[in-house]
Amino acid sequence: SVKKEVSYSNRGMSLEDDINQSNQFYLLTNKAIIHKKPTPVQIVNVEYPKRSAAVIREAYFKLASTTDYNGVYKGRYIDFEAKETKNKTSFPLKNFHEHQITHMQQILDHGGISFIILRFSSTDESYLLDSSYLVHYWKEQSMGRKSIPKGEIEEKGYSITNGYQPRLNYLETVDRVYFYPSL
Amino acid sequence: SVKKEVSYSNRGMSLEDDINQSNQFYLLTNKAIIHKKPTPVQIVNVEYPKRSAAVIREAYFKLASTTDYNGVYKGRYIDFEAKETKNKTSFPLKNFHEHQITHMQQILDHGGISFIILRFSSTDESYLLDSSYLVHYWKEQSMGRKSIPKGEIEEKGYSITNGYQPRLNYLETVDRVYFYPSL
Ligand SMILES: [Mg+2]
Ligand SMILES: [Mg+2]
Repeated sequence: SVKKEVSYSNRGMSLEDDINQSNQFYLLTNKAIIHKKPTPVQIVNVEYPKRSAAVIREAYFKLASTTDYNGVYKGRYIDFEAKETKNKTSFPLKNFHEHQITHMQQILDHGGISFIILRFSSTDESYLLDSSYLVHYWKEQSMGRKSIPKGEIEEKGYSITNGYQPRLNYLETVDRVYFYPSL
Repeated sequence: SVKKEVSYSNRGMSLEDDINQSNQFYLLTNKAIIHKKPTPVQIVNVEYPKRSAAVIREAYFKLASTTDYNGVYKGRYIDFEAKETKNKTSFPLKNFHEHQITHMQQILDHGGISFIILRFSSTDESYLLDSSYLVHYWKEQSMGRKSIPKGEIEEKGYSITNGYQPRLNYLETVDRVYFYPSL
């Protein structure tokens, strides 16, 4: 009998959904404790109706001062941001903002693991790239280049495998890059 | 000339304010990268006015699935929750909820540093208590006791010094408990 290769395509699911599902899986299997931070909002007005829950009636989205995900894995502090693009040949730096870059550099300085997960949605390819490279390209922006060429991401980054459980097995990639780089 | 002892009382400032100010100080002095997580809200309805920022018109407070503070200090993952009480002789366990206790146990299991900061606001005393004790008292609740006696907190915990910069020097206490326990 001929076995058919099962291909787990994530087309249609957002990168954030995939990571949340993966984190949930990692939590349930006791592999890592990683959570998405809540969306930061500035709350201006709250209603307190009798006999029911408080309702926020006016609030505004705030710019995050950190990255979206952090937690602990194998005793190490782990911190990352995830972004996707429809671009095919490079990853636009406008997906990030100054505060996040500063935060990533701080995490690196203090001995944490800091990286970004980049997805090219048109081809459903995801990469892990250490934040040191992002910091480098961010600083080079003043020289003109506003994006990271895909070739550079393929060279300096590591591709992440799509699956069913977890949907995006990024900790396998983290192992390869930060824990057992000689394998 | 007689020098007057300067006493830094935090009376009137909330514990959360004190910790936020301390984290800001630690960040600026490059001592640790610790942030408060945003308040989790369930966003139901958003208005997008022309020419101005999106306004959240209906949202609800959600129960946090983790603790409020985490980050990296001396290469270690650090995670804590802060609570104050007006009680004088014990700390009521109703200040915590099941999800947070589970989260703390997970952090301990994965090699992170996990503790709580407890303040008795009537006397302005703050203590650091390792989460393992909270987990213990939480489980004992079924036996009847719904609070941690202050005597136990004084014995198992470590008092935190109030100051001006930072207002609550809890990392000095973290050093004493987790990094240089023999000093
Ligand atoms: Mg984000
Ligand atoms: Mg809280």
